[in-house]
This record gives sequence, C-alpha cells and structure tokens, in this order.
Amino acid sequence: MIGVYDSGFGGLSVLRELCARLPERDFLYLGDSGRAPYGGRDPDTLLGFAEQCTEHLFDAGCRLVVVACHTISCVALRHLQRRYAGPDSQRRVLGVTIPAAEAAVAVSEGHIGILGTRRTVQSGTFEAELKKLGPQRVTQRAAPLLAPLVEEGWEGTGIARDAVARYLLEFEGIDTLVLACTHYPLLMPAFLSSCTARVLDPAPFVAERLAEWLSRHPEFDTPGSGQILAQCTSDPSFFREHAARFFGQELRDVEPVNEHGGRLRRGSRAHVVIGQVVR
Amino acid sequence: MIGVYDSGFGGLSVLRELCARLPERDFLYLGDSGRAPYGGRDPDTLLGFAEQCTEHLFDAGCRLVVVACHTISCVALRHLQRRYAGPDSQRRVLGVTIPAAEAAVAVSEGHIGILGTRRTVQSGTFEAELKKLGPQRVTQRAAPLLAPLVEEGWEGTGIARDAVARYLLEFEGIDTLVLACTHYPLLMPAFLSSCTARVLDPAPFVAERLAEWLSRHPEFDTPGSGQILAQCTSDPSFFREHAARFFGQELRDVEPVNEHGGRLRRGSRAHVVIGQVVR
Repeated sequence: MIGVYDSGFGGLSVLRELCARLPERDFLYLGDSGRAPYGGRDPDTLLGFAEQCTEHLFDAGCRLVVVACHTISCVALRHLQRRYAGPDSQRRVLGVTIPAAEAAVAVSEGHIGILGTRRTVQSGTFEAELKKLGPQRVTQRAAPLLAPLVEEGWEGTGIARDAVARYLLEFEGIDTLVLACTHYPLLMPAFLSSCTARVLDPAPFVAERLAEWLSRHPEFDTPGSGQILAQCTSDPSFFREHAARFFGQELRDVEPVNEHGGRLRRGSRAHVVIGQVVR
Repeated sequence: MIGVYDSGFGGLSVLRELCARLPERDFLYLGDSGRAPYGGRDPDTLLGFAEQCTEHLFDAGCRLVVVACHTISCVALRHLQRRYAGPDSQRRVLGVTIPAAEAAVAVSEGHIGILGTRRTVQSGTFEAELKKLGPQRVTQRAAPLLAPLVEEGWEGTGIARDAVARYLLEFEGIDTLVLACTHYPLLMPAFLSSCTARVLDPAPFVAERLAEWLSRHPEFDTPGSGQILAQCTSDPSFFREHAARFFGQELRDVEPVNEHGGRLRRGSRAHVVIGQVVR
C-alpha cells in the first residue's frame, strides 16, 4: 500500500494518474483538508503538519509515501526524508518537484513558467531544481486565487477563465507552463484557451517516475488488488462529495482522521459547529 | 488604548470607522495575517488563534479588545468573554455580530441576506441574533472567494464584479444585504452594480455602538492622542503596502509579531523561506 499525502483535495488529481499507471497497487490517500489551505502557514507549522501526516501513513502500514502537494514538496520534502527515510530506513518519501522539473526541461525550448502557491514560489525550490537540469530561463508567479476557485467548484465559469488569463499576462515569452499546484489541472480548459505555451500537468510524469522507481525498488511496496482508501481531516461526506471532480470518479471509502495531542488518529469529530464554541 | 483583533487585513476597514468616530482614542490593531484566512479553519484551531491574539492585546496594555473579524465574532466571542472578561474582570471583549444584526433589523422590511465566510454562515450566529430582534426572514450564503479576491488586489476588476453577481444570485427577494466579512466593503462598487437590495457595511454601526459603550463604561479605556499602532503575524512591509486599501490611508507603524511556543511575541522572523526547510 502506497501512501499519498496532500493538503486537501488537490492531490486526488495526482492519485488519479498514479492509479491509472499502477492499477495493481493499493493506495491510502490522506487529505489534510481540515487544516488547508497550507499556502499561508509558517514553515514550522507546515513541518509539523507534514510530520503528523507522514507518520500517520507509515503507522497505517505504508512503507512508501508520495507527497503529492507541491507546497510541501517544495518546502518540507528534505526534512521528511531526513527524519523518516535515511539510507538505512525501510521507508521512503518521494515528492513531485523533481519529476515536474524534469518533465518541463525535457520539452521546453528555453523559457519555463512556474505557476503555484505563494509558498511554493517563495521557496525557489522549482527554480533551483530547474537550474540543476539546464540553462533555461524561469519565470515564477503565485496564483493564490486559483485553488480557492477550484475548491468553490467554479472551474468551468467565465470567472475562472478570466482569472487564469489575468495570471498568464505575467508569463510573456514562456514556451512551457508548469501547473505546480494540484488544483490547477482542473482548470486545464481555461489554461488551454488563454495560453499559447505548452501547458504541463506534472501528474502523469510523477506516475511514470514512480512506476520506474518501484521497478528498481520493489522492496518498498508489494502489488495488491488496486484498492483505494481515502482519509481526510475534515467532514468525510463533504470530502467525498467534492472528491469526484479531482479524482475523476467517486471515492468509495472516505474515513475521518483527526489530530489528538499532536498525532493523527482515525475517528470522527463534529465538524459543522452551530453557534458559539466554548472550551 | 483599545485593542482591535482581526484575522488579517479586513479589520482595517473596521478600524477606519473606529478612528473616524473616536479620533481621540489610541488603537492597537493586531492582524493575524500570517495564519489567515480563518474562514475555512476548524473551530478548535480558531479558538487557539483567538486566545493567543486576545492575550497578546491584553498583555500589551489594552483593557478592551474589539474582535473586528466576523468569523471569530460568530464562533469564539462567547469563549473569549468567558475566559478573559467575566463580570469581575477589569477587561472586556466586544464583537461585531450584534451591532451588525441590530443595524440590519433597523432598516430591513422583512428579508435580510447575510454574506460571510463559510464558518460564519455555518455557525448560524447571525441568524440566531437576528431572530432575537424580530420576525424577519434570513437568507445566508458563504462567499469563500471574495476575501481572497480582495487580498489579491482584484476588487476593481470584472472578475470581482462577476464573482459578486454570481453569489448574489442566491439572495432573491432580500431587501437588505449584510456584508458580514470585513473584506467585502472594498467590493462595495461591485455590490452596488449588481444588488437591488440595500447593502449594509456594519463597520459604522460597530463604531457608533462602541462610542456609546465607552460613554457608559469609561473605566475600560482612557482617551489618548489618536495614536494607531498596527501589528501583524506576516511580513510587516507587505502588510503596510496593502493596508492602505483597507484603512484608507497609510499605516505609519507596523510591527511584526510571531508565535513562539503557543504565545505571540513581538519580533520578526524570516517570513520568506528560500528552499527546503529542515529542523
């Protein structure tokens, strides 16, 4: 069973590609939707969330965790790898930044655009990884409105097309645009209608690289029967209701998970609070 | 010195009215911009943030804290009042929900619309307060995209007008619309162009009620010299740059405040994190 960790719904667009490429594998998806959005949280808090989620997936029996969230991949992947997946460890943590950068360099003619959350752009991690791979020019821009637009279910509206077009104004001259947030592939029609550059959803490349990696490291996961279990830290019925837009089909099982004393545990909590809360 | 607490920038639109109505008072504004937006967060997290911010303002010498944020007013005001401002306490915590509800009831002909964050709407607090005041019908709707739109500085765009118009579709038949989030007054031109009902910014009523309250309770604040100090939990230069749109003029002093071990403390921290973080 492979663990897939994301800040909320977005990573389901990555899980979809992983399942398509690796249909015989079992996946446990953890969406930290109760604490999303991650993009404005301070790095210390993000590291704490990432530790809790990664530990939870390891405790659930995964030996391999894929961080599907670009923000966490850019800010905290190295921390997670050092803490949980040293050379002697029986566990591994993989991210999405390097596969995305490699895919972009493979097709770009010299000028790559990166669109992501504020924290992803501020980290400069994409730029650093791209620089290791070649001499191409890089233009980065944060698009803080696009994930909320998709969360609201407005990805098919003129408002979404106008917002995408407005962000794209700052990418003049690029030949390849990397959608460096897992929400953005849902806006692909809006991107294709405004963007003259090649628009790259990294998810299929992440899936391809994971398949190669598993063939070289079979000890970190055993093929199963294609089971998919999802867990989230917000209301599971709301999560399931919205998940299909990201995953492309209904999620059958969504379990609630919640923080108790600094660890995540299975179990529900009242999420819709009516009236004033006193503790 | 009166403390004014908000999740970020929005409360500056309330502070502006408080300063206009009470020009001789000193104010300390605390914007928790590093942890905003609050609107989708779980109540436990919100209570923790609200405690830290309220304690910080009391520690700074305020005896009176005005919670300018509608989300916190709707979810956590009673908690803050019980914890910090019992009958024997020398401290008070006031909110914005009741002044807003009273202002709406005073002008409505029978059908009031409430537009706020998801958490504000879910709490049902506005509806409960309105029901205490009269028999009017209430329609509520969350508009999670509008605060991010304003934060992005897009309030004057066609995208903002289209988004406002789309949310207003669900308010058929109302005669009065309460802007129950402190970001929304910046979208007033967009509201006025789409909304046939009366559009109500509660901030001037909050200021009026605060002035009355102070005249009855002079022991909770001493008139000063009209000084305004602002503090925020994100990058202070970014905060000052954007504050003028909300406050109507430049903020002279913006100090950084950060969380350390569950408490807020004055002092800066590197907010722009480059590269991977390891701890």
